[in-house]
Amino acid sequence: MDYYDELLQRLKDIDLIGQLGSLLGWDQEVMMPPRAAALRAEHLAWVSKEGHTRKTDPRMGELLDELEGREDLDEIQMANIRLARESYDKATRLPTEFVSEMAKHNSRALISWTEARKENDFSIFRNDLAKSIEFARKKADYLGYENLRYDALLDIYESGLTVSRLDPLFEGLRDKVAPLIKSVAERGRRPNVSWVTENSWEQEGQERLSQMVSESIGFDFDAGRRDASTHPFCGGPNPDDVRWTTRYSEHDPFGSLYGSMHETGHGTYEQGRPRELDFQPAGKANGLGIHESQSRLWENQIGRSLEFCHWSLPLWKEAFPEKMQDIDAEMLWRAVNVVEPSLIRVEADEATYNIHIMIRYEIEKLLISGDLEVDELPEKWDDMYEEYLGVRPTDNSSGVLQDIHWSMGAIGYFPTYTLGNLYSAQLLSAAREDLPEHDLQISRGDFSPLLDWMRRKVHGRGSILEPAKLIEEATGEAPSPEAFVDYLRDKVKRLYSV
Amino acid sequence: MDYYDELLQRLKDIDLIGQLGSLLGWDQEVMMPPRAAALRAEHLAWVSKEGHTRKTDPRMGELLDELEGREDLDEIQMANIRLARESYDKATRLPTEFVSEMAKHNSRALISWTEARKENDFSIFRNDLAKSIEFARKKADYLGYENLRYDALLDIYESGLTVSRLDPLFEGLRDKVAPLIKSVAERGRRPNVSWVTENSWEQEGQERLSQMVSESIGFDFDAGRRDASTHPFCGGPNPDDVRWTTRYSEHDPFGSLYGSMHETGHGTYEQGRPRELDFQPAGKANGLGIHESQSRLWENQIGRSLEFCHWSLPLWKEAFPEKMQDIDAEMLWRAVNVVEPSLIRVEADEATYNIHIMIRYEIEKLLISGDLEVDELPEKWDDMYEEYLGVRPTDNSSGVLQDIHWSMGAIGYFPTYTLGNLYSAQLLSAAREDLPEHDLQISRGDFSPLLDWMRRKVHGRGSILEPAKLIEEATGEAPSPEAFVDYLRDKVKRLYSV
Repeated sequence: MDYYDELLQRLKDIDLIGQLGSLLGWDQEVMMPPRAAALRAEHLAWVSKEGHTRKTDPRMGELLDELEGREDLDEIQMANIRLARESYDKATRLPTEFVSEMAKHNSRALISWTEARKENDFSIFRNDLAKSIEFARKKADYLGYENLRYDALLDIYESGLTVSRLDPLFEGLRDKVAPLIKSVAERGRRPNVSWVTENSWEQEGQERLSQMVSESIGFDFDAGRRDASTHPFCGGPNPDDVRWTTRYSEHDPFGSLYGSMHETGHGTYEQGRPRELDFQPAGKANGLGIHESQSRLWENQIGRSLEFCHWSLPLWKEAFPEKMQDIDAEMLWRAVNVVEPSLIRVEADEATYNIHIMIRYEIEKLLISGDLEVDELPEKWDDMYEEYLGVRPTDNSSGVLQDIHWSMGAIGYFPTYTLGNLYSAQLLSAAREDLPEHDLQISRGDFSPLLDWMRRKVHGRGSILEPAKLIEEATGEAPSPEAFVDYLRDKVKRLYSV
Repeated sequence: MDYYDELLQRLKDIDLIGQLGSLLGWDQEVMMPPRAAALRAEHLAWVSKEGHTRKTDPRMGELLDELEGREDLDEIQMANIRLARESYDKATRLPTEFVSEMAKHNSRALISWTEARKENDFSIFRNDLAKSIEFARKKADYLGYENLRYDALLDIYESGLTVSRLDPLFEGLRDKVAPLIKSVAERGRRPNVSWVTENSWEQEGQERLSQMVSESIGFDFDAGRRDASTHPFCGGPNPDDVRWTTRYSEHDPFGSLYGSMHETGHGTYEQGRPRELDFQPAGKANGLGIHESQSRLWENQIGRSLEFCHWSLPLWKEAFPEKMQDIDAEMLWRAVNVVEPSLIRVEADEATYNIHIMIRYEIEKLLISGDLEVDELPEKWDDMYEEYLGVRPTDNSSGVLQDIHWSMGAIGYFPTYTLGNLYSAQLLSAAREDLPEHDLQISRGDFSPLLDWMRRKVHGRGSILEPAKLIEEATGEAPSPEAFVDYLRDKVKRLYSV
């Protein structure tokens, strides 16, 4: 067998194990009975250990040594070899036993976080979180870094990302976005949303709406599912089996719909992967920043546009005939675009969202460096919300316990959300050049031209290029925050005349 | 590390892989979107191959050689070694590649069977079934047998079972049960069940009833789930995560409830396994005959007793207040005990049930020996139903396509159902000796004395003893059909005065 074929065979094995892990993870969140937590931790640890053993097999190193530098390789072969090398180097630095212990711990921490959040009691999660931070530090030490431990964690989720690259980016956004938020707070006329808050919104209507919108965008429900879970996510083992979740609140019909559009964005990306590259690293979705660009695209750039509100109004009226009787598209549009500092990240508006991320980013830096102790965390969290957003959580469930990420050991993950916001604006701006009828199409519910553009330029390109290169190929320009800031400025002007 | 500890470590690994397979199987039946079938087949094949590789590791043979014949072993150690030997011998006879191919095929066959059943078109399933029979024959040849190929298949599901042991047993049942059925058909007064058939029964009420009854019996829903699937089954990875399903028909409220009680029987068995023996063969449920004894116990011996009908009547009235207004416990009891030849095995009454099994048993013998071709099968099936039960299927969906088993490659499995019926009667007869208040307890819905008896005598004993020995330990007598025949005679007499 040729070296490259053997490499592909081994990568397929690794990918299959990853698919099992995805399914176990989905089941744990959505289906698993509570008492099964401890044994599920054993399953996940086993899967993680089996994957790690294969990723670190010395034969992988030999094969890569043989293949690297060959001159007869095409674009896809080069990508597979590059990605396999990254994965091999990252994996060989983590001892098998450490990976297995960490997986077991994460599974336990997820349970204590769920309980803590439900009981609004940080102390239930405290010890597991402290241990998660210890695990993250050890992980960073194993992986290695030049300047900061935290850099090693950032690099896991977006190759090459560092504090020195991120700091100016967040500063830039803060410089341009903070004044916008301030003008809205001072001078903007807050829209009347009493029709939303003074009604109760049945789950059944919300489910129908989520389903109809997701189908219309182009999510294929013969190759996926919609369910409910505490923390919405998109998972599932492969492009033929993509499973996303949302959550429902009777007080707020927007959370479930926009959560559904967010996960539909992730889901259509997964379903659009290049199928001839199944089981190959080059065929996978390209990192978290790009993934988030797809979710943000449908949730915000499309979902919160006036055109989308025109199209979706009849669906709203169908799902909630009485409550929507006197509502027109512009009222809907204003209601889904309220710019207002708030406590919950996943419900934040586009303007304030990146400030939520910035707070987590600053806190993660402090936790990893040891400049912030776990016991000081809840207060620090509340203080930063007060300082940057002018709102202070009254309990931990809507404060420091709101996000699932740390319970899963995903420290260094949050900044990719902001990258996603920037990429989404840049991609849509480029797509508009090719789709002169874009606004008209959205107002008609004809989402396929935009989805097809993303299929061609993003989804179908898998991980053949590095994320930044993919953005450059798709848009003609290197990643930059400009398109996002322009988009936000324009929108806030139309909404609030500021 | 001691040989025995190493054996346990390896057995744990094998068990964990089996747990993953169970979860994948459950998900395939209950949750998986349709397009995912092909890649799910890859998952199952991978899991099957990984398990097989470990089961056939030569080191297992070495360890067993070292351990067998040692004199310092306790009951549990001896059981683990005996069971590991059986598994090793069975597994080493099947080549890894063959097992993987068969798993892939079974996954595909399950899809074509589902489609064929839905479309009522045997031809959709025909080729896959023919291939399944080929796989079964090859499997038998690999495993080896003394007299008949089919013996090797029977032995998979109940150790030591052969045609020469089963033929007289079915003949015996036929000799004593057939005359009973005949007298009922000729002289019995058919109960009036128009209140059942002339009503439509909402799924919601059926679900509530299934849930309440299963909880009352003692199924722990913190360690399990109830869902719906085409073919009801009980699965899930381990005693903390036991998942059973049922199905609902608006025309028949009994199918879902008695199906639920059946699966609850399987489920309580799994939940009652000896937890100190987690991951060990000795801690597993003891073969299919014993398993079926637990499902049949709750479904029939308890569920169709007059005492149970007395207790459950108020639940029925709660779930279906209008429809149950004029119904008393005796009417309910007569309606759930109609003795009448019918087409569908899982809906058959206790008296005719074993004839359904006998037909499948005879057909499997013919298919494996080659005396019956797949193309002749649908007609042969219909002919035998006409001959032995006096009813002829009008379509394949309610005939040869009704059962999932062959689509999963489970040929040789059906006879364990009849073993289960015999064991259940024998166990309840022994339990009654220890529980003089049994009938009173059931009529009060106090199921815990009987469940505790089963926990102590059956569930908690795992697979420490061979099935026949376990029955003997629990009941004081070797397995025999007498208790079952006595029970049936007595019941038919009370119901039909014949």
